[in-house]
Amino acid sequence: MATLLESYAAGRWIRAEDEGEPLLDAATGEEVARISSRGLDVAAMVRHARDVGGPAIRALTFHQRAALLKAVAKHLTGVKDELTTLSAHTGATARDTAVDVDGGIGTLFSYASRGTRELPNDTIVLDGGVEQLGKGGTFVGRHVYTSRPGVAVQINAFNFPVWGMLEKLAPAFLAGLPTIVKPASQTAYLTELTVRHILGSGLLPAGALQLISGSAGNLLDELTVQDSIAFTGSAHTAGILRRHPNVVDGGVRLGVEADSLNCSILGPDVRPDDPEFDLFVKGVVTEMTVKAGQKCTAIRRVLVPSGLRDAVIEALGARLSRITVGDPRNPDVRMGPLASLGQRDEVRKAVEALRAGADVVFGDPDGGTVLDGDPERGAFVTPLVLRAASGAPEPHDIEPFGPVSTVLAYADVDEAVTLAARGRGSLVASVVTHDPDVARSVVLGLAPWHGRVLVLDRDDAAESTGHGSPLPTLVHGGPGRAGGGEELGGIRAVLGHLQRTAVQASPDLLTAITGRWTTGAARRESDVHPFRKSLADLRIGDAIRSARRTISLGDIEHFAEFTGDTFYAHTDAEAAARNPLFGGIVAHGYLVVSLAAGLFVEPSPGPVLANFGVDNLRFLTPVKAGDSIAVTLTVTQITPRNTADYGEVRWDALVTNQDDKPVATYDVLTLVAKEWP
Amino acid sequence: MATLLESYAAGRWIRAEDEGEPLLDAATGEEVARISSRGLDVAAMVRHARDVGGPAIRALTFHQRAALLKAVAKHLTGVKDELTTLSAHTGATARDTAVDVDGGIGTLFSYASRGTRELPNDTIVLDGGVEQLGKGGTFVGRHVYTSRPGVAVQINAFNFPVWGMLEKLAPAFLAGLPTIVKPASQTAYLTELTVRHILGSGLLPAGALQLISGSAGNLLDELTVQDSIAFTGSAHTAGILRRHPNVVDGGVRLGVEADSLNCSILGPDVRPDDPEFDLFVKGVVTEMTVKAGQKCTAIRRVLVPSGLRDAVIEALGARLSRITVGDPRNPDVRMGPLASLGQRDEVRKAVEALRAGADVVFGDPDGGTVLDGDPERGAFVTPLVLRAASGAPEPHDIEPFGPVSTVLAYADVDEAVTLAARGRGSLVASVVTHDPDVARSVVLGLAPWHGRVLVLDRDDAAESTGHGSPLPTLVHGGPGRAGGGEELGGIRAVLGHLQRTAVQASPDLLTAITGRWTTGAARRESDVHPFRKSLADLRIGDAIRSARRTISLGDIEHFAEFTGDTFYAHTDAEAAARNPLFGGIVAHGYLVVSLAAGLFVEPSPGPVLANFGVDNLRFLTPVKAGDSIAVTLTVTQITPRNTADYGEVRWDALVTNQDDKPVATYDVLTLVAKEWP
Repeated sequence: MATLLESYAAGRWIRAEDEGEPLLDAATGEEVARISSRGLDVAAMVRHARDVGGPAIRALTFHQRAALLKAVAKHLTGVKDELTTLSAHTGATARDTAVDVDGGIGTLFSYASRGTRELPNDTIVLDGGVEQLGKGGTFVGRHVYTSRPGVAVQINAFNFPVWGMLEKLAPAFLAGLPTIVKPASQTAYLTELTVRHILGSGLLPAGALQLISGSAGNLLDELTVQDSIAFTGSAHTAGILRRHPNVVDGGVRLGVEADSLNCSILGPDVRPDDPEFDLFVKGVVTEMTVKAGQKCTAIRRVLVPSGLRDAVIEALGARLSRITVGDPRNPDVRMGPLASLGQRDEVRKAVEALRAGADVVFGDPDGGTVLDGDPERGAFVTPLVLRAASGAPEPHDIEPFGPVSTVLAYADVDEAVTLAARGRGSLVASVVTHDPDVARSVVLGLAPWHGRVLVLDRDDAAESTGHGSPLPTLVHGGPGRAGGGEELGGIRAVLGHLQRTAVQASPDLLTAITGRWTTGAARRESDVHPFRKSLADLRIGDAIRSARRTISLGDIEHFAEFTGDTFYAHTDAEAAARNPLFGGIVAHGYLVVSLAAGLFVEPSPGPVLANFGVDNLRFLTPVKAGDSIAVTLTVTQITPRNTADYGEVRWDALVTNQDDKPVATYDVLTLVAKEWP
Repeated sequence: MATLLESYAAGRWIRAEDEGEPLLDAATGEEVARISSRGLDVAAMVRHARDVGGPAIRALTFHQRAALLKAVAKHLTGVKDELTTLSAHTGATARDTAVDVDGGIGTLFSYASRGTRELPNDTIVLDGGVEQLGKGGTFVGRHVYTSRPGVAVQINAFNFPVWGMLEKLAPAFLAGLPTIVKPASQTAYLTELTVRHILGSGLLPAGALQLISGSAGNLLDELTVQDSIAFTGSAHTAGILRRHPNVVDGGVRLGVEADSLNCSILGPDVRPDDPEFDLFVKGVVTEMTVKAGQKCTAIRRVLVPSGLRDAVIEALGARLSRITVGDPRNPDVRMGPLASLGQRDEVRKAVEALRAGADVVFGDPDGGTVLDGDPERGAFVTPLVLRAASGAPEPHDIEPFGPVSTVLAYADVDEAVTLAARGRGSLVASVVTHDPDVARSVVLGLAPWHGRVLVLDRDDAAESTGHGSPLPTLVHGGPGRAGGGEELGGIRAVLGHLQRTAVQASPDLLTAITGRWTTGAARRESDVHPFRKSLADLRIGDAIRSARRTISLGDIEHFAEFTGDTFYAHTDAEAAARNPLFGGIVAHGYLVVSLAAGLFVEPSPGPVLANFGVDNLRFLTPVKAGDSIAVTLTVTQITPRNTADYGEVRWDALVTNQDDKPVATYDVLTLVAKEWP
């Protein structure tokens, strides 16, 4: 008898109280592992996550969490071969496994990188700027994102046992949430092995990651308002989750990513001898055959101009006939079996139902050639192409979760969009076109119905990641039938796990709460120029108020001559007088900020290493000859880097004129050493 | 018999088929109006919104929609007196009506302003920057927000018949959605009058706004995946909506804003003679008495340090005893009746239940003095303060929707946060403190449980809008019991109505789809300098590639001397050599951008009126003496202003050195005339 998979709960590996159910190799039907969660105390898991895991993660800054994700990604890279070998049991070819295992590890790396670059080295995130709530500036508001003291539960589908877990784990962990993973049983052995490696690395804090191998039991009953469930799977199961009292009335957040009837559209501009025609056919065949079509993003509906329908069907058939189906361990095999005999039954049933509105035009619904593998015990299905009858509803409603696509003809762009929308919300659509107008009208027509739209043409094909690949930096999910959820999208998924709250306070207290200096709050000026302070000494609110400098007409003329910026508003009094905004010669904006730098800079070598940028520069009042300017520079944000001996300091720069009117505002970005000397 | 309210459906006012139910004056019990929707064809309303209203709104740009909202706000301002007079029937005092009517109109003005300033003059919104998806730059991604071809249904509570409608209408309309309003019956006459004025103005496109006076019938059965419901009201009704099949399985989006057990916390730092003590007491009394406590944001739980419990109760009593209750038309009345006798029964029942865990310490649950108004037929309730027994669950579970608050004692900040969280998610909390550490720890502890947190102290009190006031620029909504929805928050609410989609394409096609120039896309260079083109002639992608200029050591030395920016990296070769990032003298960043302007500028008078700002300036490669630079400037975005004869043009600036390495990148912002000459 094969090994019984274990669950990892409240700090230890737990073996079920019974012998479990067998999990079979997709190609051979041999037992790979057994699974059961009988006797598992899921309430204790939730408590452990909430009381131990959550506080430990939230004690780390976003950058520290990102560094741990990177370390985990590196650790998993080291055991990739082991994961790949085990993956073959799921029916995955080497190409399929790359999507799952490499894709999963890549997602961790991506979140590690984004978390460091796009989140502060802090535990809260600010959203948007400061809102002035009163004219006097004493009452202001700002939105903050904070971590919820809850648990992130993930309930995953069988098709991506590694990626499915990691793409949910990475943003949840960054957001400060402990995770409980419940993989689909069929391929749970690969998830379990991955979790063993992650936990074995000792990198994550205790309680950050727990695993349920087998049924989730009464897990949902234990969840409350700060907890969330991220579900990937069928619309049917999604419906059951949505009806749970803790979801309906208890405030548990539920995100759903369900299979959908994605389509690919061949643009009306494409001719059979255009490169786009081949790209289209190739894309459809790839999506039909990768993971044997068991992807929630696969192309189920192939929308083509009426006149090209037969040509497309012929080209699909030609390419599909070269796809060898069989045991994925055979290097000549291009497409493996489905994950289980149960899945094969489901696909056969769906094809049968689909045939009420479509004819099979390529492939054999009941068989086909299989290379290696046991055709009886292995869950083999060979690729099938159907041709829809005009107006048939079935292709828009029935999803065979395997290597099956249906070709539908459309008359014009409007009909193509209308047909796409009949899927009632999908994860992804693709359009193959080289025409800018077609691209714009089709994409904007599809967008409200989709979470992602791919436009493929001769220019991006070489680098395109394809119709079916969610990317860590782009949102994944779709409205309606696709579940209405949204995952990934870089930091968007992290923010989705956080609670957004509007905070209203005085500038001083808002500064204290957010850790960012807020206009109107106290400034700390001292004898020591803040450019003399290292990160160890610098504080939010440290400021310098400069001396004043008068700008002469000579300065403006000289600057024009020196830089070559002889724009008439700086050089031609008569023409400048006619400018509706200036009414006379004004100083160059670049002159103002250059002189301001001269006013605030501390010249000697010190902890400030460089000015690496400027943000949000706005010129508010024109500066005329004879005006004098002064600048106040205030520390608004300090971001030490965990991987360097310096960090970033953001300064609020306010340039005012002799009447104390604001002339320019901007943020100055500097790199400052952690220690000095 | 009073007037029968009408519904506005599919372009005309509809009278119900029956006599309707009476709606009574809150203070006198006299009939104000009758209401019924018997015979109303809600399916036709949904079709009308979808087929007529939606397309008409979406044919307008965001700026055009914003302009219409502003015009509607002005129109309603002109009929404010009429609305105010009618409002008295609801039990509202003049102060209460200001919150509802002025607050509602103010929300329209706010959205008009934000829509113009923060949204493009276009029909799609971009989210975030361009994502490089391939190393060669031929495959890129970007997120777009598009309008859904659906209907926004709003189901409102009785307490804010004007604001409740307008705060939902404004963001939905900006987002391109037609609205169907279903107000609560009790105060629907005020909503109906407001809708009559809006429609009477003729400002909105046909189908943009429809009204159901009375039951919504089978409205929900008509909604599909692109439609949404925004509900404000009880958790009980929210539960019914959440269980509707079209919500559970049909993809209809449901946002809920439900009453919650909001708290106000007196900081542990506050002493009875601090100004914060009075601010706290005053805040609680205001929230208890405005709208007679019928606000979903009212303070139900008063959390005070144990030692100050009696002092707070005494101070509340002293202030509440000065509140006169009666007919709101009497100018001496400070607090009106509840909206109906039914509401009075509900409050009495809730107080009775609350008394299982709390004692009444101020007020008379069964009566009290009433100024004017019929104590039998008017729905009067006088203010009540209760004192909770230690650990009692009732104050965290039972919500008397009237002038009732319960005082609870806490030992320390942690316990205060824990007690607040027992409300299982609230719309708003307030903290009254002048201590930065208390403010930070309490606010960050409360934040995950709240949509808004107000910090009140001596510094912001004069300008504070108070605990109970949602503001158009700040999010309104809360997790868990508060419904889990999010409204307002400026443009956030508009984006919440749109669908976010990741688009992947080549730079050229992404430019065509989004209407923004994308790095890597074709540039159009011609003999005409783009600064010579007015908005009428300028196109996305128009570009100028400048000549090249060598920067000498003399230039750097001169710039240092001229501007006063003598930072050692520009002036001291030995010290600069030790700088870890430069390793020698480098040109000032401001010198580089100043010279770049000299290279790209077209000096003669022309359509470019001003450079009003710079965004996202980053210095990427140091420029040393002897290096030469050139700059390419490309039009990325054009935003004509509807209210001026010029618009904003955003230019991508790329400065490169002699090795074609990027030296600096930034966006140049200019104002350009619509026509020239």
